[in-house]
Amino acid sequence: MRAEIIAVGTELLLGQVVNTNATFLSEKLADMGIEVYFHTVVGDNPKRLEELLQLTDTRSELIVLCGGLGPTDDDLTKNVLADHVGVPLVQNQEGLVALKAFFEQRQSTMTPNNLRQIETLQGGLPLPNRTGLAIGCLYKNEKNNYLLLPGPPSELKPMFLEQARPLLEKEFPTTERLTSRVLRFFGIGESRLVTELAEMIEQQSNPTIAPYAKPNEVTLRITAKTEDEISANALLDQTEAEIMAKVGEFFYGYGEENSLVEVVVSLLKENQLSITAAESLTAGEFQATLGRVPGVSEVFPGGFVTYSAATKANFLGIDSTLFDHVGVVSEECAKLMAEAALQRAETDYAVSFTGVAGPDKLEDKAKGTVYIGLAQKGKATIVTENHFTRDRSYIRHSAVMKGLDMVRRSILNKN
Amino acid sequence: MRAEIIAVGTELLLGQVVNTNATFLSEKLADMGIEVYFHTVVGDNPKRLEELLQLTDTRSELIVLCGGLGPTDDDLTKNVLADHVGVPLVQNQEGLVALKAFFEQRQSTMTPNNLRQIETLQGGLPLPNRTGLAIGCLYKNEKNNYLLLPGPPSELKPMFLEQARPLLEKEFPTTERLTSRVLRFFGIGESRLVTELAEMIEQQSNPTIAPYAKPNEVTLRITAKTEDEISANALLDQTEAEIMAKVGEFFYGYGEENSLVEVVVSLLKENQLSITAAESLTAGEFQATLGRVPGVSEVFPGGFVTYSAATKANFLGIDSTLFDHVGVVSEECAKLMAEAALQRAETDYAVSFTGVAGPDKLEDKAKGTVYIGLAQKGKATIVTENHFTRDRSYIRHSAVMKGLDMVRRSILNKN
Repeated sequence: MRAEIIAVGTELLLGQVVNTNATFLSEKLADMGIEVYFHTVVGDNPKRLEELLQLTDTRSELIVLCGGLGPTDDDLTKNVLADHVGVPLVQNQEGLVALKAFFEQRQSTMTPNNLRQIETLQGGLPLPNRTGLAIGCLYKNEKNNYLLLPGPPSELKPMFLEQARPLLEKEFPTTERLTSRVLRFFGIGESRLVTELAEMIEQQSNPTIAPYAKPNEVTLRITAKTEDEISANALLDQTEAEIMAKVGEFFYGYGEENSLVEVVVSLLKENQLSITAAESLTAGEFQATLGRVPGVSEVFPGGFVTYSAATKANFLGIDSTLFDHVGVVSEECAKLMAEAALQRAETDYAVSFTGVAGPDKLEDKAKGTVYIGLAQKGKATIVTENHFTRDRSYIRHSAVMKGLDMVRRSILNKN
Repeated sequence: MRAEIIAVGTELLLGQVVNTNATFLSEKLADMGIEVYFHTVVGDNPKRLEELLQLTDTRSELIVLCGGLGPTDDDLTKNVLADHVGVPLVQNQEGLVALKAFFEQRQSTMTPNNLRQIETLQGGLPLPNRTGLAIGCLYKNEKNNYLLLPGPPSELKPMFLEQARPLLEKEFPTTERLTSRVLRFFGIGESRLVTELAEMIEQQSNPTIAPYAKPNEVTLRITAKTEDEISANALLDQTEAEIMAKVGEFFYGYGEENSLVEVVVSLLKENQLSITAAESLTAGEFQATLGRVPGVSEVFPGGFVTYSAATKANFLGIDSTLFDHVGVVSEECAKLMAEAALQRAETDYAVSFTGVAGPDKLEDKAKGTVYIGLAQKGKATIVTENHFTRDRSYIRHSAVMKGLDMVRRSILNKN
């Protein structure tokens, strides 16, 4: 099946927003065996969008339109498509209920232009919006197939994954199915990973092996093309075993939507272990990351942000004269912070972070120098010295990920 | 002048690479008064690229082509364009010297396919590549103008800024320039903002007014088209004054790269005021947000993450029997948390967060119910009751932004 993606929005043509939706959709459609031949960005201009639709009808079998479903006058994607296929727009009743509930909950007045967001093409399949208000639509006629998705990635992604993808799989089944498995790695860079797996990647045909570098981690997507699930899984199992023999040391979990913090919180829950933190340069980011996981309160009672030397002493009860000798950017400080936090919060684990996020040096230590402590009930405290690179935000993220991995390895006795 | 941007590369259509080049070029071209009407991505396929060039010739006066200038067989942009305009490719002598020097310095052998990188269209203006090997080209004929740039952003950006932009300014001088100003708003949704400004937006011509919704905030970009900067600023000042008369209540700052936290940290610094926090449902995210701003240590010594009732009592010294009556998701609890944090950290401000991030209810309070406390040295504590919507992560982000805005308004005496 030949598809193409149209993103509608003048903000894209002005360079105010990056078209990450096209990237996301291309990757997901490729996984489904749907080939994307073009991306186009067009402004909020009905005439140019209509001309584009006339062109895309001649060359593609699925047109994915993103953006322009909102409440304002320049949101016109639905109107142009409705004219193009010759059907009226109708209000979606489910969407109307959700829209009214949204404004009631906020205790604010709904302006009438919001009703535009719950209109869809008559005869189309409406797609509810779990994270926003503008509903999507899959519209098929004898000429073509059109998928309408909202512009904000926080709305487009869940709508595509939860609503549109299953619908497309049902409407356009393929005899050869693609089955994917995603392996996630921490502590190894993409270039080293592909070097270790060079021979496998060169010889790949079925399954294919696709590495993706993400911030502070690498994923490998292995995809088998088969007629049934059983032979797919057999192929994937074999390839996975070969990969693990080479780089299994760095593997931490499966799945596109998985993350290191989710793996760590699951491990803590399974083992009935609790955790706290004392954060200097990360300033709460480690704990905020834990907080993203629903139900984390079972294992995480709270912790400390000790940015200044004074709060390291006051909140944690550390004798501040100790810092005079070793400084706050030191192995010793990380150890003191972790052990004090463990005692104060009465948890099984305590992670501490102290270091230099930059842009400037601190205590003559270079930007990126980070000490991470891991105190454990009944076990010796571990401290790692790290030298992270790139900018302030990346250094903080690197530290959080490394702290999570230290906890993971400790629970699994892999330290 | 009407322009469009074509990015060539199958990796873009597979979702492996984001088309940031189009974003970069669009912004720079808009600043020069060149209007970009389309972005297109096409794979490494000569036939589809040629068809696209036939189309773009009919609708644009400048075609910017990025990518496909490298040494491998799938790099074919130059060849397709040369055929399209009917001229041969020739070697660029300057490029050849640089290419040979590159391989000599590396002490490695140059494979013959590298010579493809220094070919340009006969009659075109070659553009040297300071950060890579593939040279670019500006080619003009009676039909159209074509600008060829390399795909890697690290090569494209310097080549555009240093070579192509001055050349375009000379070749296509414009009398009219675009000057933009971005206004940022918090506490008003996009639909209400455009409703308040409906008349202005309807009648806009010069300056234009473009609203853009971002997570928990809205920006307005006002753009004037004038011959000089003085008259641009006069126009922008006037439009801004009209906007502020209607929605100035929600305005917090200027600039595309600005943010609410940066405004708040600047205000704290200017007024020599310090801040701490006690966070329950946000679990450190407010403090981590403060931590993103370089130099925040001047005003932020640290704070508390008090996720459980026990840590609310232990870390902050609150009498836990108080929670028996009012619960932890309450105005009273937010007040107690903020006041205790203020005392413990000895700061001028303390912000507290307690509420329900979801997915489940807590103490019979609905998901999204959040109490935010603001304790201030020498002033009465303020608590707001909020009803945020969407998912766990959005609710936490909404709470952080509202907490920041409460601090901003307090410093500016706008509470």
